[in-house]
Amino acid sequence: MTMTVSALKEHSLLGLKDLSAAEINSILERAAFWDSQTDKVVPVLKDKFVANMFFENSTRTRFSFEMAEKRLNAEVLNFAAAASSVEKGESIYDTVRTLESMGIDAGVIRLKPIGVLAQLAQQISIPLVNAGDGNNEHPTQALLDLYTMKQHFGELKGLKVSIIGDIEHSRVARSNLWALQKFGAEVKLCAPENMRASDLAEYASYVPMEEALCADVVMMLRVQLERHSGGLFKSKQAYREQYGLTEERASRLAPHTIIMHPAPVNRNVEIDDAVVEHAQARIFKQMQNGVPIRMAVMERAMR
Amino acid sequence: MTMTVSALKEHSLLGLKDLSAAEINSILERAAFWDSQTDKVVPVLKDKFVANMFFENSTRTRFSFEMAEKRLNAEVLNFAAAASSVEKGESIYDTVRTLESMGIDAGVIRLKPIGVLAQLAQQISIPLVNAGDGNNEHPTQALLDLYTMKQHFGELKGLKVSIIGDIEHSRVARSNLWALQKFGAEVKLCAPENMRASDLAEYASYVPMEEALCADVVMMLRVQLERHSGGLFKSKQAYREQYGLTEERASRLAPHTIIMHPAPVNRNVEIDDAVVEHAQARIFKQMQNGVPIRMAVMERAMR
Amino acid sequence: MTMTVSALKEHSLLGLKDLSAAEINSILERAAFWDSQTDKVVPVLKDKFVANMFFENSTRTRFSFEMAEKRLNAEVLNFAAAASSVEKGESIYDTVRTLESMGIDAGVIRLKPIGVLAQLAQQISIPLVNAGDGNNEHPTQALLDLYTMKQHFGELKGLKVSIIGDIEHSRVARSNLWALQKFGAEVKLCAPENMRASDLAEYASYVPMEEALCADVVMMLRVQLERHSGGLFKSKQAYREQYGLTEERASRLAPHTIIMHPAPVNRNVEIDDAVVEHAQARIFKQMQNGVPIRMAVMERAMR
Repeated sequence: MTMTVSALKEHSLLGLKDLSAAEINSILERAAFWDSQTDKVVPVLKDKFVANMFFENSTRTRFSFEMAEKRLNAEVLNFAAAASSVEKGESIYDTVRTLESMGIDAGVIRLKPIGVLAQLAQQISIPLVNAGDGNNEHPTQALLDLYTMKQHFGELKGLKVSIIGDIEHSRVARSNLWALQKFGAEVKLCAPENMRASDLAEYASYVPMEEALCADVVMMLRVQLERHSGGLFKSKQAYREQYGLTEERASRLAPHTIIMHPAPVNRNVEIDDAVVEHAQARIFKQMQNGVPIRMAVMERAMR
Repeated sequence: MTMTVSALKEHSLLGLKDLSAAEINSILERAAFWDSQTDKVVPVLKDKFVANMFFENSTRTRFSFEMAEKRLNAEVLNFAAAASSVEKGESIYDTVRTLESMGIDAGVIRLKPIGVLAQLAQQISIPLVNAGDGNNEHPTQALLDLYTMKQHFGELKGLKVSIIGDIEHSRVARSNLWALQKFGAEVKLCAPENMRASDLAEYASYVPMEEALCADVVMMLRVQLERHSGGLFKSKQAYREQYGLTEERASRLAPHTIIMHPAPVNRNVEIDDAVVEHAQARIFKQMQNGVPIRMAVMERAMR
Repeated sequence: MTMTVSALKEHSLLGLKDLSAAEINSILERAAFWDSQTDKVVPVLKDKFVANMFFENSTRTRFSFEMAEKRLNAEVLNFAAAASSVEKGESIYDTVRTLESMGIDAGVIRLKPIGVLAQLAQQISIPLVNAGDGNNEHPTQALLDLYTMKQHFGELKGLKVSIIGDIEHSRVARSNLWALQKFGAEVKLCAPENMRASDLAEYASYVPMEEALCADVVMMLRVQLERHSGGLFKSKQAYREQYGLTEERASRLAPHTIIMHPAPVNRNVEIDDAVVEHAQARIFKQMQNGVPIRMAVMERAMR
């Protein structure tokens, strides 16, 4: 498959910031199609080779991509950095370029260093799908979040969405913010001082916790307190008290509000144990929706 | 696939203690059918997705399940804890529930913490197959052991089976004990004081090593001396002298006696190097038999 | 599949030292056939089970074998030592023998301890393919190197090949040396004193760096300075200055000379960053060629 650079850009999925609402919508609609199919495996990507390249650990995202790829009948090769030559100091570029040389048709990639994915996309000629890129973007996560919101509310326009937690380190927050605003949703952020992202200040305002809870969607983020050792919180308990979605807070949500979380959750830190499977929670539904979303994304990458 | 809870219980395989002799027999018979097939791959589980979830390391068991699943043409996704979000503190429940949400049709699971599997079986609605559960049960291992004994002796009734070694920590010993007694085999245990299991005292008696060797089946267990640092044995050599199946002891076994071991073996600790592939040993035969056994178990899980 | 020992030897690929030029040639020709095919997947190894057993970490080699096996439609099971029972002290033999018992049709194996592979080949009755064996041989790497040279130069006879770097620890150097000499190529070695291999002294002569660069093929080896801590080089920079293929040195190569490296490369140690994708470099071409070579080797193993 030879593609021009502009065609390639249509196939890769690096982020949602530069995607049009129409493009995003067509992915969501295709996901709805896959969601409605009863056949578990269809030969859409038969004889296509996909490499899942995880330079950062992940269970659920890798698994979700693998399910999606195998449901489309692709040949799947998994690569995890922990068992790889990255240990030998090999650069990410060399690894990706190597797998490309070997004939894979598309690559799914997760990595930590900021800016490397954008660079790779210039250097590599097969479609790349971003499965989490530093604190920059996590487009398939936001797509499944949008899908989950649309599934519940019918449309995104006018929806009030609060994103609560460690905004600074969150690629999930960024991808959701870019995408939701394209559809006219109203995004508010809520975070302690030391977890705010200065780069987002011009796009959304920070509100106190009580105000954040008055929304159609309350999206809790995973908190990694170890990244904030010099910060406000001396303990998980302290964080929970101020920014956690406790049982008590959940009980005060409007009945139509839904609770989301990109997972994995820190039970009893940013969200109480009993709230994870609350009637208004959509956390496992989000995971379920990840598969048709990734089917749509992988099909688009190799169509 | 929606199933009632009782139907689900018929599909899951959590242990042999609560399985009837008839149920066990039907698995053994189906394994014999698979064992007799010459086709390597059959489309019995075509388009079914199985997740092998190993929260505890394993080569042979995971491999054996994967062979069985692929011989039935299932789509296989592997998950090993070492490369997983369990590192991030995610609970086993969250992981299994996640994979279920993504649409797997059955899960094979190995884990260490006692009681978690029984709990999971209440919370998860897809069939679960126990691939080793703390020191509780390892049903597919015992099934392949029974299959191996039947293959050699024709029937299990009246068979004298000695299980020798670290009974306390052995899920293999427990699963074998429960299953063998249902078929009227006579099980004796042999272990040093500090490796005896108090919960089994009412089901089988402990005999000295010399008496244990007078049996139709001598089943040696893997010893992990590091778990018994305060114990009787100062060295592997000391353990071998008192409880190892040495060449000398093997030479005194009755000619019809078979030697078994669930593997991996500690050569020259619980069994001498030269005894592993002794004419009376069935250790690699056991491994071979694991594949048709697991084909029967996985077919049963998703039939 | 039952084979006599001599038939088995024809199917296994342990090294190139004992293979005839005709045998090597037939593999190269079959690789050219696979290279010319446009179908990505062909059912040549349908329903055959291959185990990739890597007792030493590897990204590219495992991936390349997996691509080749899947393009031939084999069922692939991966095993990496880091997530395995080798940790529990199990011997390599026991693992390979176990996988054999479970019914795999061929095994690809990479391991570190010297002499173990040769021993295994006597004990195991399925075909084994060497994917890197201590510092002894790495036959598929040398085959793809030969293929790459033939692709560029048309024939191997009379070709001047310089192998530069850590010869002592290099299985790549050894496999290339044995194979190239069978075809009448002239191999020269270049290495600092403490990286020379005394076992190769009678087969090829060591030349200074400047002389080594006057060749048709300049093959740089990966240097692992950590293995030579007591050696000549205090730093990567010092090694690069004396034995690295710097931009300056690359600019002085004859225009027909090609640059090769088995990868992964240490950029700016044995080869400069800018030289890796130099117009005369064939490094990613080598990786590409690895797939048809391994298709030919795996087909041969199970034909």
